[in-house]
Amino acid sequence: MKVAILGFGVVGSGVAEVLERNADRVEKACGFPVEVARILDIRDFEGHKYQRIITKNFEEILGDDSIETVVETMGGVNPAFEFVSRSLAKGKNVVSSNKELVATRGYELLELARQNNVNFMFEAAVGGGIPIIRPISRCLAGNNITEVAGILNGTSNFILTKMIVDGMSFGEALALAQEKGYAEKDPTADVEGIDAMRKICILASLAFGHHVYPEGIFTEGISGITLEDVAYAADFDCVIKLIAKAKKVQDGRILVMVSPCLVKKSSMLSGVSGVFNACLVRGDMTGDILMYGKGAGSLATASAVVGDIIDCAGHSDNRKIFGWDDKKDDYLEDHLNCDSSLYVRVRGESEAEIHRAVDSVFGEVTYLKREGADDREAAFVTAPARERALFEKLEATGLDIISTIRVADY
Amino acid sequence: MKVAILGFGVVGSGVAEVLERNADRVEKACGFPVEVARILDIRDFEGHKYQRIITKNFEEILGDDSIETVVETMGGVNPAFEFVSRSLAKGKNVVSSNKELVATRGYELLELARQNNVNFMFEAAVGGGIPIIRPISRCLAGNNITEVAGILNGTSNFILTKMIVDGMSFGEALALAQEKGYAEKDPTADVEGIDAMRKICILASLAFGHHVYPEGIFTEGISGITLEDVAYAADFDCVIKLIAKAKKVQDGRILVMVSPCLVKKSSMLSGVSGVFNACLVRGDMTGDILMYGKGAGSLATASAVVGDIIDCAGHSDNRKIFGWDDKKDDYLEDHLNCDSSLYVRVRGESEAEIHRAVDSVFGEVTYLKREGADDREAAFVTAPARERALFEKLEATGLDIISTIRVADY
Repeated sequence: MKVAILGFGVVGSGVAEVLERNADRVEKACGFPVEVARILDIRDFEGHKYQRIITKNFEEILGDDSIETVVETMGGVNPAFEFVSRSLAKGKNVVSSNKELVATRGYELLELARQNNVNFMFEAAVGGGIPIIRPISRCLAGNNITEVAGILNGTSNFILTKMIVDGMSFGEALALAQEKGYAEKDPTADVEGIDAMRKICILASLAFGHHVYPEGIFTEGISGITLEDVAYAADFDCVIKLIAKAKKVQDGRILVMVSPCLVKKSSMLSGVSGVFNACLVRGDMTGDILMYGKGAGSLATASAVVGDIIDCAGHSDNRKIFGWDDKKDDYLEDHLNCDSSLYVRVRGESEAEIHRAVDSVFGEVTYLKREGADDREAAFVTAPARERALFEKLEATGLDIISTIRVADY
Repeated sequence: MKVAILGFGVVGSGVAEVLERNADRVEKACGFPVEVARILDIRDFEGHKYQRIITKNFEEILGDDSIETVVETMGGVNPAFEFVSRSLAKGKNVVSSNKELVATRGYELLELARQNNVNFMFEAAVGGGIPIIRPISRCLAGNNITEVAGILNGTSNFILTKMIVDGMSFGEALALAQEKGYAEKDPTADVEGIDAMRKICILASLAFGHHVYPEGIFTEGISGITLEDVAYAADFDCVIKLIAKAKKVQDGRILVMVSPCLVKKSSMLSGVSGVFNACLVRGDMTGDILMYGKGAGSLATASAVVGDIIDCAGHSDNRKIFGWDDKKDDYLEDHLNCDSSLYVRVRGESEAEIHRAVDSVFGEVTYLKREGADDREAAFVTAPARERALFEKLEATGLDIISTIRVADY
């Protein structure tokens, strides 16, 4: 089978490398060899071993009927959407690692694939090399999935791990991540939760059946997390993790959001350190399932793309059904209408004054300790309640709210 | 699509329940409804809601051409093998949860499926509801897998967890497991590692491409583990887990074995507690991937069966390739020819005497401490070396060897 790769960057070049290095294994899995016939990239690759098959002209790939499967690893929506949609319309399978494309245009592209009886697959778009998409859409298909929750951004997890384990500040840990190449010069998409948000939109669409678009999804990053929060969390036997979650709530609606959370040390999610990712899927029949591994990296992500290429090879006449329908009105619930338990750090006149104010509004809460805290601050964890009510109560204490972080229940 | 269920026990009745409770979701995933048309069981189910479709005569199922897929949840090799092979030969897909059948006759049955252009699937045979088989055979197909290691038996993991967390003895923990229904009256298959061994044979066959039969696989259980070992392991920052592993070693050979291991507390495998299971897959491209969840239970296991039923529905003309060939001569390596690091507990005349004997034979080792140990015992961890050499050296110390446990490197 001949494939073309669109975009010869980190993932695209990894795909070529995996197909070359593990050619035997790929051929055994497909039943025939897979050949990279063309590569699209706007840059010059003078003297590169793939130079003769690299082109700047997408039409050469589109017009080559011998190319059955197109691999899109360009990133971004434009021109990726145009190239992918025209490839599907031309009867080619498409495998993509592009989370932004899948999160924003997934339904359209799956529809187009359906109409043309070809496959559109995107295992690599979430969790790099970790099997997540196929387990959710295939292995757990007998379940009603009630929640998906993941640590889906390696950069922010690396930063949090350095804060928790090595006592670095957010700024120091970010600088180290940039030095190591884990974070970009402009780290906004990673540390503010945008990357994780795109990924949870994809998982929510898959798990619950209607396209969840990124617009308007509540997204809170980790740039406000301090070492004081980390210390208080430890006193509650928790670590702080950036959790992207999608959950069935009342009246057929779902809640999709990204925010830092306190995660109990006994939870499998708490053991996910450094640049690793994990995704927890709660099914009505299976209970909690967790998938863990490297969430990024050239070869790991590329190997997920290659897994999809092999799957396409086996399904030339047999399209995969993802059960991902168009968006639905009145489908997304506001997090303020859902229940949470909150960790809160406040400042006031004195410890006694703070406790009086908190107790009078909240009734019972769990107070936390940290070494070195002065008498004018306190931290506590509330019982679970409607978030709107919790934030109103916080306001009613009249105290200076320094930080609030949700408490996860897995 | 019509299916028949062979064996209406824990898993078989779970399959019927999952298909009924999640009928909407199954229909959406398949594109059409799935109906349980017949159930085979030798028992009477007087007044049961499925009574009218239950039969004691397999021929009625085999002869019914409207039944496309047969679900085998009987367990054991006989008569399961006969029923499964005849179903495949008759052109029916078969989905099985039967680890003993797959471990001992998997290659034959896959060959028979291939010849008849139908599917033989068995996601539920390993890890209950946890997606393991499909991730290994599909998602990670672009990798050369170098090792698979898992906590694959919930009963023994429950016992070890109770020993580690609650300080119960092996006997007390086993009695509790039996009381809770996690262990059978005769717990041999679980606590002596036989169940885990069958499962790792299946995973080894899938990951490395040649059928690994259970006969002759080195299998050590947990009945010899004591609270003293647990305490020493803690001093090495480890917990003791029953690990089933399959690993590529020298000269194209593989090592397949089951034994207790010391697992570092920083490892994701150490967090797998109680009846939960986990499987770690080491790929050359992905690095370490871990899948975690409930490894047993009626509905969890049944949901994996239903996932396979749905996959069969989508592949009526398109057989899945597993790349599982017949056995190969000179393929399995003896564990004594492979490298390990060993934890050892010994008894001698005095601590000084023990140290002298150990140091003179081993050179440097790491000595461990436990509260309450008397002066006549010691425990240590060796550097990694060929197992045969390590055991010979132990003999050469002239000390009384109380226990030896391998140290895992993940």
